[in-house]
Order: sequence, then structure tokens, then C-alpha cells
Amino acid sequence: MKLCRYEYQSNHYYGEWTEEGLKPFKGDLFSGREATGETHDHADVTLLAPVEPEKIIGIGANYVGDKKDLPDTQPEIPVFFYKPASSLVGSGAEVRIPEGVDEIKFESELAVVIGKRTKNIEENEVLDSILGYTVGNDVTAPQFFHEAGHWTVGKSFDTFTPLGPAIQTDLDPLNVYVKAFVNGDEKQNSKSDLMIVSLKRMVSYLSKVMTLEPGDVILTGSPLGAEFVKKGDKVECTIDEIGTLENTFTK
Amino acid sequence: MKLCRYEYQSNHYYGEWTEEGLKPFKGDLFSGREATGETHDHADVTLLAPVEPEKIIGIGANYVGDKKDLPDTQPEIPVFFYKPASSLVGSGAEVRIPEGVDEIKFESELAVVIGKRTKNIEENEVLDSILGYTVGNDVTAPQFFHEAGHWTVGKSFDTFTPLGPAIQTDLDPLNVYVKAFVNGDEKQNSKSDLMIVSLKRMVSYLSKVMTLEPGDVILTGSPLGAEFVKKGDKVECTIDEIGTLENTFTK
Repeated sequence: MKLCRYEYQSNHYYGEWTEEGLKPFKGDLFSGREATGETHDHADVTLLAPVEPEKIIGIGANYVGDKKDLPDTQPEIPVFFYKPASSLVGSGAEVRIPEGVDEIKFESELAVVIGKRTKNIEENEVLDSILGYTVGNDVTAPQFFHEAGHWTVGKSFDTFTPLGPAIQTDLDPLNVYVKAFVNGDEKQNSKSDLMIVSLKRMVSYLSKVMTLEPGDVILTGSPLGAEFVKKGDKVECTIDEIGTLENTFTK
Repeated sequence: MKLCRYEYQSNHYYGEWTEEGLKPFKGDLFSGREATGETHDHADVTLLAPVEPEKIIGIGANYVGDKKDLPDTQPEIPVFFYKPASSLVGSGAEVRIPEGVDEIKFESELAVVIGKRTKNIEENEVLDSILGYTVGNDVTAPQFFHEAGHWTVGKSFDTFTPLGPAIQTDLDPLNVYVKAFVNGDEKQNSKSDLMIVSLKRMVSYLSKVMTLEPGDVILTGSPLGAEFVKKGDKVECTIDEIGTLENTFTK
């Protein structure tokens, strides 16, 4: 099932994404998902980021180019960072390049959506805590990284976290290809088994630090190939089983 | 007026803190603050963090010891970091020292609570965007800082952000003393005009990066004197005009 969030006639809905249209729920993603029976046409809705997370957590530099390059030992403390909820936008929204810079980076990523309150779990319990998977674009302005290593400002501008188009609940997350296209040209295309810190290890590690809440989003890192883009460029982040997150960069 | 949030007979309330007792509101802090007319005794309530923020933003190393040490030029990109909402606790709650370490740091701070949606404001507009001020303890386990400079893990453990006891709406934030006591001994006591990045500059800068939402919390940095504490230590973070945020550290 594909879950989405959208605006229709100035109201916001959670619902099921189907080829036929968007089928709204009476409540949110975590309250039974009872359908109202309506169907809203694709042409009449604006997709929003498919979830409203308390936390959005990213991981730095988490892909190798080839399985033989995977390290023998795991990092003791992975590079995690937060992005603010105020940076979320949906597929179709514009990404705004901040004042003072002319180009910023896209990063296509497999995004985990947490399904229940999760604390202190082991790797073999992780999949039970996940509602589903969506596509994230971890937009980044490295010009605003602090010289002492803090990425906060460069990751936090409004519109810097496109997410969507939908949450796929039926997916083998270890067996997908994470792709990106800029103006139609393929720039990223890596299988998710090239992650250095695996999805299961990442979620287990985080759950031992903090309580993960339903709706929390974990961006699992971007494959090799992320580049700078500029005003007017269209970036499509695609995972075939989920869909395409499409955003045009503006200034 | 002092605003607070508390638990009474298993229900959570926003309300006014008075010497006489806690006077609950019908809604939250941002919906008119109409009193129900009840008064709950101090002895019958558990204080919670006084607000439920979308974002908690901290700033690194932001105090000098003496005004003559204030730098002539401001940092172009201040060191900002996020703490997750899952790390919030109120005054009186225990702070848990994580597995693998025996001591962690307290940091007493003046905390700003945003009062309205705020985007792209100048320094002279900042005070209009602030609901009030509370005390924060930016608990930190530097043993979990990443060697490349990322503080995320070391700032994020559950219970690592005590906040409270209340939000003081009537305060001159440039004219308070930020204090901390460990088991009764004074460890920190600095006037807020020793901040390197001023409160107004900080909020204006952040508002040019991201949309600040009502309830967002900005921890304005800790004075000199923060130390490690261990199991059993009681830390009191005090700003006289606001109150004392008191937490015992446990393991």
C-alpha cells in the first residue's frame, strides 16, 4: 500500500495513493487508516511531505561505490545530523536556493518512516518498528557548513527536505535502487546494500540513544553521484517501488 | 506571568504558575490562555517541560568570561545544533547517564521560547517574536561527539534537555544572571550580556535560515563553569526572575 498526504480544496488529508486517485482516511497514518470512501483526482490535489515527523535524522557519507569497498569495521559513532520539520516539502514543490549562493546539492535517499514508539531495540527487531519507506532529497548547501564540522545551517533552510511522493509499506529495503536524475540525466543509481552503516544497524543505534516516535523519518544516506544544481534544474529522486520525488530548484 | 505545563491526576495541562498553585488553561499556550478557574496545588502536580517544541536549537561556546573578551567580529556561521524533543524533561525529573560512561556535563542556559511563526526578521524585531524565557540544561555527553565535529549523538539522549520550571513572559533577557549549582555549590554565574552571538542576532540569523514556529526553543549558550557530574549529583540551573530547574543525575 502507498500512503500519502495531500492538500485538496485547502484541506490536508492523509490517504492511500492509487492509480485511480487519492483515497482519504478519516484520521492520520497511525489511527486505523479508515477510508472515508471518497476518491480525489490526481489532477485536483497537491502532494505534501507524506508524514509530519517529530524528528528527521540523516546520516553522513554512508555509501560505497562497490561492495568490495565496504569497511571491515563499523564506525563506533556514525555521523548523524538532524533536519528541521520546517524544511519539509512534498513532490512537486520548489526548492529555494538561499541568498548568497548560486548552487546547492541534491542527495537522493531511501527514507525510513517509523511506525511506533521505539526505544532500545536490536537489529533483528528494526523492521517491526517501520511503517514504510519513502524517498528523500537531503538538499544541502555545504557553503554553510561550519569549519569545525557542524552541518546544521547548511542542512536546515526551508524547502531543503523534499519527501515523497508516498510511503510504500510493502518493500524489501535492502533490495532497492536509489536513483537521481537532473534534467533527465541519471546521476545516482546504487543498490541499498552498498550502505556502510546498514539500515537495521542505524535504527537500532538511534533507538539506544533516543526514543523514536511514530512518523519520525530517518534518511539512510545518499549514493555516490550527488552534485551541485542551480536555478531551473529539475531533480527527480526515484526508487522504482515507491515512485519519483520531483522538485525544481529556484532562486 | 509565569507559564507552565504539568501533569495532574494523569492529565497534562498548560497553565499559569503562581505561588498559590497552578491555574490551568482551557487550551495550550497559543490559544488565548483562558483560565478554567481551577487551582491545582503544587504538591499534587508534576512539572513537565513548559512547552512542546517542533525544534530545539542550541548554540555552541557562546559566552566569554569578561566583557573585554568579547570578539570584535561576529562569527559568520555560528555553531548551531539541534536537540530532539524526545530529550525533554521537566524540573524534578531524573537525568539518566547513558550506558558506557560514568559522567556527563550540565550546562545552564537562558532559553528563548518563540511565540509566533517567524521568518526572515531583523534584530530589532526579535523581541516581538518571543513568548517568554525559561531555563534550559543542555546536558551533554562529549564522549559521544564524532571526531569530525558532529555533536548529534552526544546531545540527543533521552532526558538530556531539562527545561523549566516555567516560562517567564516579563523579562529583560539582556539583564539576567545564568547560574548553576551542583549539590548546592555555585558553578556558573554569568550575566547574559557576556554572550558572543547576542540573543537578538541569534534569533534573527536562524529566522533567515528556517521558519521558527510557536513553541520552538532556542538555548542561548552556557556560561563558563560547566563541569562533569555523576550519579547522585543534583544540578540546579537558576535564573532568579524565572526560577530553578532542578534535576538529579542517575545511572
